[in-house]
Amino acid sequence: MKIARVEAIPYAIDYRKPLAFASGEVHAAEHVLVRVHTDDGVVGTADAPPRPFTYGETQASVRSIIADHFAPSISGVGILEREVVHARLNRTVGNPVAKAAIDMAIWDAIGQTLGVSVTELLGGFTDRVGVSHMVGFAPPESMVAEAERIRTTYGITTFKVKVGRRPYRQDVEAVRALRSAMPDVELYVDGNRGWTPSESARALNEMDDLDLTFAEELCPADDVLGRRWLVEHSTIPMYADESVSTPADVTRELLAGAATGISIKTSRTGFTTSQRILGQCEGMGVEVYVGNQIDTQVGSLCAAAFAAAYPLTARRPAELSNYLDMRDDLLAEPLLIEEGQLRVRQGPGLGITIDEDKLTHYRTDS
Amino acid sequence: MKIARVEAIPYAIDYRKPLAFASGEVHAAEHVLVRVHTDDGVVGTADAPPRPFTYGETQASVRSIIADHFAPSISGVGILEREVVHARLNRTVGNPVAKAAIDMAIWDAIGQTLGVSVTELLGGFTDRVGVSHMVGFAPPESMVAEAERIRTTYGITTFKVKVGRRPYRQDVEAVRALRSAMPDVELYVDGNRGWTPSESARALNEMDDLDLTFAEELCPADDVLGRRWLVEHSTIPMYADESVSTPADVTRELLAGAATGISIKTSRTGFTTSQRILGQCEGMGVEVYVGNQIDTQVGSLCAAAFAAAYPLTARRPAELSNYLDMRDDLLAEPLLIEEGQLRVRQGPGLGITIDEDKLTHYRTDS
Repeated sequence: MKIARVEAIPYAIDYRKPLAFASGEVHAAEHVLVRVHTDDGVVGTADAPPRPFTYGETQASVRSIIADHFAPSISGVGILEREVVHARLNRTVGNPVAKAAIDMAIWDAIGQTLGVSVTELLGGFTDRVGVSHMVGFAPPESMVAEAERIRTTYGITTFKVKVGRRPYRQDVEAVRALRSAMPDVELYVDGNRGWTPSESARALNEMDDLDLTFAEELCPADDVLGRRWLVEHSTIPMYADESVSTPADVTRELLAGAATGISIKTSRTGFTTSQRILGQCEGMGVEVYVGNQIDTQVGSLCAAAFAAAYPLTARRPAELSNYLDMRDDLLAEPLLIEEGQLRVRQGPGLGITIDEDKLTHYRTDS
Repeated sequence: MKIARVEAIPYAIDYRKPLAFASGEVHAAEHVLVRVHTDDGVVGTADAPPRPFTYGETQASVRSIIADHFAPSISGVGILEREVVHARLNRTVGNPVAKAAIDMAIWDAIGQTLGVSVTELLGGFTDRVGVSHMVGFAPPESMVAEAERIRTTYGITTFKVKVGRRPYRQDVEAVRALRSAMPDVELYVDGNRGWTPSESARALNEMDDLDLTFAEELCPADDVLGRRWLVEHSTIPMYADESVSTPADVTRELLAGAATGISIKTSRTGFTTSQRILGQCEGMGVEVYVGNQIDTQVGSLCAAAFAAAYPLTARRPAELSNYLDMRDDLLAEPLLIEEGQLRVRQGPGLGITIDEDKLTHYRTDS
């Protein structure tokens, strides 16, 4: 039950179409598959999706920090000694996505070793979670068609709409088109820090009749007082996402009055730190939801395993469907979204089986 | 792995001497031993120490809430479905000690079922924790003699001194006597809400040269502004204990500026909620320590298992030695404090084996 080896395998899989949002555009999933091998032959698996425009990590940086720093520092540590692992990983600042993938792979190894699912290890609240789907930038009619197709095909009725473009009115029009076409679905918007506080306020004002559930990260975290002003004047809750990648950032944003809700992403805080952030938010009376880091099926399975473990995360749809935009995936048995819900894999660990032929095909280090 | 039955066995074991502090005095440990039986024959064990003067629970209330409400509501739930268990327990407000004992007994059952220790399940940081010893009210020379005996016998060098009497100066004199006799030990004080804010301020001022690490719960939580004023003017950190028996209370006390540190007691928040409070405090940059609810050896073992699991709890001595004042205990293999440290039991679960003969002897329901 000791960590013997950590693999960090870079790979690339194209998206069906480029994903566009205010902070960037991605054409291919250039991720790193992380595998933690134990001395008794168990292999825990997780996915690291680097996001240079959000956390500064790249595929190359994730590989090197794991190979050169993290793997040597945790070799020989027991998989159950998670707090020892984190103390060692945290000697290096930053690199959240690399740390999170190691953390989740270790939990997977623990689950396999003990013969129980990670959801059960974490809290075991339920076996499935609702799914929210992200609608990226496109002409309004295309965004509507996409949402309708997703609703018809997967039964998904909650949509996150990307906003944050300039002029802001094109986004307002897109959201209005979605609301007109689908009066009964749940809609919320994500600005990816694209707007100023005043643009955000004007846009929110013009969307006042569109029954938005909340708005996420409309302007940058560095707009400290502008964000506070926006929260004070907004009629809907304001969620923080990219600005809260550590527990201390959660506290900062909440104390600054810059957010009223928190997005938890397992791809950046793994299971261990996500669990802490959840405890923190629950204790402070702050709502959360489980977000998506343009995750693969492997990453989405991790997010779902966490979301299903607790009532606070399971009670609203989690963002789990970005993988639908990928041309292929490493997961041997594809995820299945039915009636708007994703079932967590039963059985030991995370239930991740990698298609080795596909990994050989898509890996970029050989 | 499903909960089949929950036993709540009342018992009474005398203390060697009455324990006196500002909020009460206890002559015997009138506790409830809680056993969670699973359908496959595993038995998880924990101790419920009712504290009427702190949480309003009594031995009889703990028995009845478990027998009449909690046991029926969680029967048939899987031991890994902890969040389901808590959702059901939390339909009933209050009763923290009864809930905590059920929670810890379930974790014990999980550990036994999976073949790993609860410390490992929680975080696995270390295998031992430092011990802090509580010195109760007595003439100053007796308090000094007690502390010196504890230091000599167990190697303990951290002492919590009970204060909160009137006039406050008798406490100041006791603390001064302890500091004079033992210049190198760590001392902190616990008022158990006995003083007013102004008495507290005067006492702290007169103890200014005694190198106290912190002060705990000097005045009642309802002295909201008085406590804030005290925190603002105190030169040492002020810890909250009885006032923070839920995560929301932690937030309230911190936001009110009424405390700078938090005492975590597994006897009132179990492992599940203690874990959340720890995440909450860590995320907010607030220090914690693991306190004692005048726990038996069974209860102390639970507190130690939690404290050893995380760096934030393991880094300072936990209060684990109150059991030394009991004439006997139900734990078959006594705890051992050596060189000021208590080792967590290795092996599955919490490592609690009950001496059935003693249980038969001390139980009060037959």
